[in-house]
Amino acid sequence: MNGGDGPKSYAKNSEYQKQLLGYSKKVMNELIQQQLDVGSNPHFDPCNPFRIADFGCSTGRNTYIAAQNIIEAVEQKYESNEEDPQVPEFFVFFNDLVQNDFNTLFNYIHSNKPNYFGAGVPGSFHGRVFPKAFLDIAHSSMALLYLSRIPEEVKDRKSGAWNKGRIHYSCSGAAKEVEAAYSTQFRKDIESFLDARAEELIPGGLMVIITLGILDGVLPSECSMGLNFSILGSCLEDMAKMGIISEEKLDSFNLPYYYTSQMELETLIKAHGCFDIARFEKLPTPFRQVVHDIQTVVLSLRAVTEGLFEEHFGKDVIEELFQRYAEKVGSHPVLYDNRYRTDANYFVFLKRKTYTSKPGT
Amino acid sequence: MNGGDGPKSYAKNSEYQKQLLGYSKKVMNELIQQQLDVGSNPHFDPCNPFRIADFGCSTGRNTYIAAQNIIEAVEQKYESNEEDPQVPEFFVFFNDLVQNDFNTLFNYIHSNKPNYFGAGVPGSFHGRVFPKAFLDIAHSSMALLYLSRIPEEVKDRKSGAWNKGRIHYSCSGAAKEVEAAYSTQFRKDIESFLDARAEELIPGGLMVIITLGILDGVLPSECSMGLNFSILGSCLEDMAKMGIISEEKLDSFNLPYYYTSQMELETLIKAHGCFDIARFEKLPTPFRQVVHDIQTVVLSLRAVTEGLFEEHFGKDVIEELFQRYAEKVGSHPVLYDNRYRTDANYFVFLKRKTYTSKPGT
Repeated sequence: MNGGDGPKSYAKNSEYQKQLLGYSKKVMNELIQQQLDVGSNPHFDPCNPFRIADFGCSTGRNTYIAAQNIIEAVEQKYESNEEDPQVPEFFVFFNDLVQNDFNTLFNYIHSNKPNYFGAGVPGSFHGRVFPKAFLDIAHSSMALLYLSRIPEEVKDRKSGAWNKGRIHYSCSGAAKEVEAAYSTQFRKDIESFLDARAEELIPGGLMVIITLGILDGVLPSECSMGLNFSILGSCLEDMAKMGIISEEKLDSFNLPYYYTSQMELETLIKAHGCFDIARFEKLPTPFRQVVHDIQTVVLSLRAVTEGLFEEHFGKDVIEELFQRYAEKVGSHPVLYDNRYRTDANYFVFLKRKTYTSKPGT
Repeated sequence: MNGGDGPKSYAKNSEYQKQLLGYSKKVMNELIQQQLDVGSNPHFDPCNPFRIADFGCSTGRNTYIAAQNIIEAVEQKYESNEEDPQVPEFFVFFNDLVQNDFNTLFNYIHSNKPNYFGAGVPGSFHGRVFPKAFLDIAHSSMALLYLSRIPEEVKDRKSGAWNKGRIHYSCSGAAKEVEAAYSTQFRKDIESFLDARAEELIPGGLMVIITLGILDGVLPSECSMGLNFSILGSCLEDMAKMGIISEEKLDSFNLPYYYTSQMELETLIKAHGCFDIARFEKLPTPFRQVVHDIQTVVLSLRAVTEGLFEEHFGKDVIEELFQRYAEKVGSHPVLYDNRYRTDANYFVFLKRKTYTSKPGT
């Protein structure tokens, strides 16, 4: 993610992610009213602060909005508890990788004078970042699609999953084995994420996941992101042919994103066994109703991917890469043709089961 | 504080502060064994993580060392509890102002693979930054000497406390009224600090304060810092005379530090009423036994003060100011004469009384 607060920052280019939070607000509120057992669960002690964590918070206003939405819903739930309508204090924990720009995040949160206590928690959410049974509600929006690592075999020329000349499994012409390698890594990542959250959440604690995925049965190369990455990849291919980057550099680069289907994610959560699925539904896709602005599309993708390209290919090629991308994407039907819009945003509402460890462990 | 990890950073120039933590380790450990009621205080529930906060943590290794020292002592105390020797998980909270460089702090802590969960808590410790009764132990080292603001009257030419041409009340020739104005501000700051911690600590919770002060009865202008600030101020005076900075700029600048005496701080804590003083003692003064190295002295002072000078006088004059200071201090007896070493480092160990609010409120 691009840190800071400048025109190319993630903070300034995450409108898509913000709209998803808006779409999910109502259903999340309904489910919190239904599923939060404030009266009956002794873990929700009104003498303790109510503890919320946002996993993969990044630096901008979206994590602030997510926290506000959850707090509003929890307040409503407490206030409706006739036996004890006392609302607890709130403590919100913002988690992201150590490299995240927490300075920018803290400045943003602070300048909005939040009505809760706030803390930043650095560390990978694929491991434990909180003590046992510490959290009441966990939230993660648009973060689980990032793989913790690129599967080794897609960079291995001896493997059938070698993704030569392409930057993602969704790029046009990628072998099925490449997607399979990504899928295996995603399964491991979901398991480690759920393992950690199962320990950190109180029994009966809740978890909201919003993630970008793909409709069941759709080919990755036919979803918007697949098409975007094909175009971005073809720009790098052009630059390799012109000798601006080396072919070897291109072959060893792959984007760390995975677009799950509803069926795949549901199966993984059920197999994990520590969470009940209270709701799994598709959210509307932002930007559908508006006239597409090339600049917005380019900046949105750039804010999220620039750091990855810079780290691998060096700072010097970034400007040229995104200029080429802007030219190609502007003349490509991807932005104007609804047939291509087969990506999907999933809203998943989970409840930590009340036994304390994974079945069979 | 200078952020980052470069040669002029606070992280690399805080050996003095580190040595104080070393001096206090043994006595702090002894007092934690005596005062931490893990067996009898129901607030220390082994199912909950043990919560420690460092107030005014800054960016470097000292906050890491402080946390380690406390954790070692608490572990020892739990292990010696024969009825239930189970050691809880630890959650350490690093607090400083929003402007603190938390990115550098998190990188440092993470690279040391701590055996506790860690979080950054941005916000002024003169107000609440944690929920009620959330903390088991609070710690603050070399942070309470920073005033939350400069008293208005020292910048007011109509006031008897106007500190014309000087940068601190400890500078040679400053009026008594200037010191009195600083002292009044210090009293307010200690009160707001203790008010907030009294709410945040559990009943029976502990607090360690290490602060730089002055021996009872000593004149501020006779302590090392007073002499250092007199020299630094005289460099600015020279620069004002040469027209490098304006006289008005110099008159409106004052350093936000206050050096309390034992008598003054003890009186304020007792008057506050929420804490019992378990120990109040003087720590040895670091750097006494070693041959003084001008470069170390200059960098230590620069790491702490540079930001303040830069904000007020602009970036351009900093290099010249500290060059002039290095020249003057190198030829001045302050570093070589023990008569001048009448500053004092105080170690204060407090215990939150078990009633929940301030007497009379």
